[in-house]
Amino acid sequence: MNIDLEERMSRMELTGSPVDHGYYMPAEWTPHSRCWIGWPERPDNWRDNAVHAQRVFTRVAAAISRFEPVTVCASSAQWKNARSHLPEHIRVVEISMNDSWLRDTGPTFVIRNSLSDKEKLGRSKVAGIDWNFNAYGGEDGGAYEDFSLDLLIAHKVLEIENAPRFPQSMILEGGSIHVDGEGTCLTTEECLLNKNRNPGFPKVQIEDELKAYLGVKKVIWLPHGLFGDDDTNGHIDNMCCFVRPGVVLLSWTDDKLDPQYKRSLEALSVLTSEVDAKGRKFDIIKLHVPGPLYLTEHEANGLQQGDAKPRIPGTRLAASYVNFYIANGAIITPQFGDKKRDDEAAHVLSLAFPDYEIVRIEDAREIVLGGGNIHCITQQQPASP
Amino acid sequence: MNIDLEERMSRMELTGSPVDHGYYMPAEWTPHSRCWIGWPERPDNWRDNAVHAQRVFTRVAAAISRFEPVTVCASSAQWKNARSHLPEHIRVVEISMNDSWLRDTGPTFVIRNSLSDKEKLGRSKVAGIDWNFNAYGGEDGGAYEDFSLDLLIAHKVLEIENAPRFPQSMILEGGSIHVDGEGTCLTTEECLLNKNRNPGFPKVQIEDELKAYLGVKKVIWLPHGLFGDDDTNGHIDNMCCFVRPGVVLLSWTDDKLDPQYKRSLEALSVLTSEVDAKGRKFDIIKLHVPGPLYLTEHEANGLQQGDAKPRIPGTRLAASYVNFYIANGAIITPQFGDKKRDDEAAHVLSLAFPDYEIVRIEDAREIVLGGGNIHCITQQQPASP
Repeated sequence: MNIDLEERMSRMELTGSPVDHGYYMPAEWTPHSRCWIGWPERPDNWRDNAVHAQRVFTRVAAAISRFEPVTVCASSAQWKNARSHLPEHIRVVEISMNDSWLRDTGPTFVIRNSLSDKEKLGRSKVAGIDWNFNAYGGEDGGAYEDFSLDLLIAHKVLEIENAPRFPQSMILEGGSIHVDGEGTCLTTEECLLNKNRNPGFPKVQIEDELKAYLGVKKVIWLPHGLFGDDDTNGHIDNMCCFVRPGVVLLSWTDDKLDPQYKRSLEALSVLTSEVDAKGRKFDIIKLHVPGPLYLTEHEANGLQQGDAKPRIPGTRLAASYVNFYIANGAIITPQFGDKKRDDEAAHVLSLAFPDYEIVRIEDAREIVLGGGNIHCITQQQPASP
Repeated sequence: MNIDLEERMSRMELTGSPVDHGYYMPAEWTPHSRCWIGWPERPDNWRDNAVHAQRVFTRVAAAISRFEPVTVCASSAQWKNARSHLPEHIRVVEISMNDSWLRDTGPTFVIRNSLSDKEKLGRSKVAGIDWNFNAYGGEDGGAYEDFSLDLLIAHKVLEIENAPRFPQSMILEGGSIHVDGEGTCLTTEECLLNKNRNPGFPKVQIEDELKAYLGVKKVIWLPHGLFGDDDTNGHIDNMCCFVRPGVVLLSWTDDKLDPQYKRSLEALSVLTSEVDAKGRKFDIIKLHVPGPLYLTEHEANGLQQGDAKPRIPGTRLAASYVNFYIANGAIITPQFGDKKRDDEAAHVLSLAFPDYEIVRIEDAREIVLGGGNIHCITQQQPASP
């Protein structure tokens, strides 16, 4: 008997780009086989030894697991603790990490509908991009100093799944891109053109890499992300996302004195003047931000000192309702304890996604305290077409 | 859309024993879907920071991977190193461990041919037993003091594979049992009745647990394992194993002055007088041990001090040719640099397994130095029937 050829081939690192092999990144609403989530641990970013964050991550994982299989990745030190908190039907695997943002450190999954001519280089219909990573800026404003474990997460996930891997030397976090699955990518200049990511790369080269790796034809650049989202340098997934091709949700505020106003208006102007890869004008749905919310002294006091950037009481929190996760048949959305805005957001989402169940996660503030939200802690693995 | 019910159900811890659910442990020659191997690391058991052992483990993994998929488990600290040494088509997952004997710390996989009436408790045809473990004796002669990570290995493997898990509070290492898949279990009194394993358990209770968990009808007890196999207190897998139902290979020596002689003779006497679960008399094939081999001063000097039992130069090594692995279509067997015995063993094995390729692993002495051999470092996962 011989080894299963499919497995042997799938283990290979693929040369060339995903597009060379017929792969592209599907939209988040394309059916998933699984959702990947990390497990918060570091006490310099998650207050009170991460107990509150772990409670909310557990709630998110449990909510998503009603709609699709979920795997939570936890370090060796935390595996037993994670296993004991999470519902039994959620898979818990050991993957060590510096921090727990699987959106940014996990693989970006790509799919193909048929096998390419280069079938011999891998027969899987699902593969993953393993981007380079420098903890959101490296020495120039990065969120934490040591990201050596984060650099291995995507590779480890792909090994577990026996999925081919496309290594990419360009630094990119998954939270800085959104695609519509029909050729359009949304991103921000604030992040992707930041000199702390890929300083030698001109805009056109970054676009070329996105086209070759995500299979998109057009990149739409918003100038900035959300006000206060300094950790990520303005990831798109806190600012604007697709509902379906041609329709976007945009973080918004009616308060002209809020520094967010200028950013939202600027984005609105770009989106109004642009068309997508298929030539469609955008239908833009505004989603009002909560608050504004600020880090309290009590919250800041729960943090230990480490190699993470210190958090100062009174800092504006990067809270936004567009940072939701699209599960199979459900929208898993953050709630911030701002009753009026929470209800309003749930209502807007229910109109935008009429065929989806809207699942509201209370206390998502705990995730914002660490620098992101539900979309940032999740990574969808598309089902094999 | 709802979560895949099969996955949700497979994640459950099953109550009752494997036999209650129609499972049994198949013989090692039953087709495998995968082989699990650990990655040696601890410098107090693997000389020169485990570099030699890692080289030989890599050779074993590569040899097996010619016949079936292989997954190697490595700690967070070693994952990158393991990944760089192992061939690309071998899967490497992060699983931390105190030592690298997947035979003893991994799950014992069981299968069932049809779904039971209790289908609602799990629909998988492959499940795993998660035995209790105390590092070969705990405070009473255990091989190392801290085995907290080893206790989690089986559970972690089963999570990765989405296989139902049967936890067992009885202490048992997989290397202390062999089954023929037709109702017979081989083991040793030296190990299973040792007071450092399950002191409150009379022999009959241990037999009952083996029957309920492995699906065997009869347990055959050899008095002792191999001479010098003090680390494991005489595991059966260094002493005697099945070739097929009714046929066994027995570690042997012609040297009446070798302390091994008495042990082999004793075992021969038991095997000659016994019949298996189906009433068959045994056909017994003798397999002469190499050497005798002894730990050299140079080898001992390569060990660092830790919480592992110290190794004394001049100690007899527990080297035996029965400690091979049956892969899909191949026998992966240790070679010790004893030309005459190595050739003889390969010849005996080729006669015993005429339909298998005999793959000889040179330098297996490096594994013996750590206390086991090829069978001890591997764990087969049977294919779903």
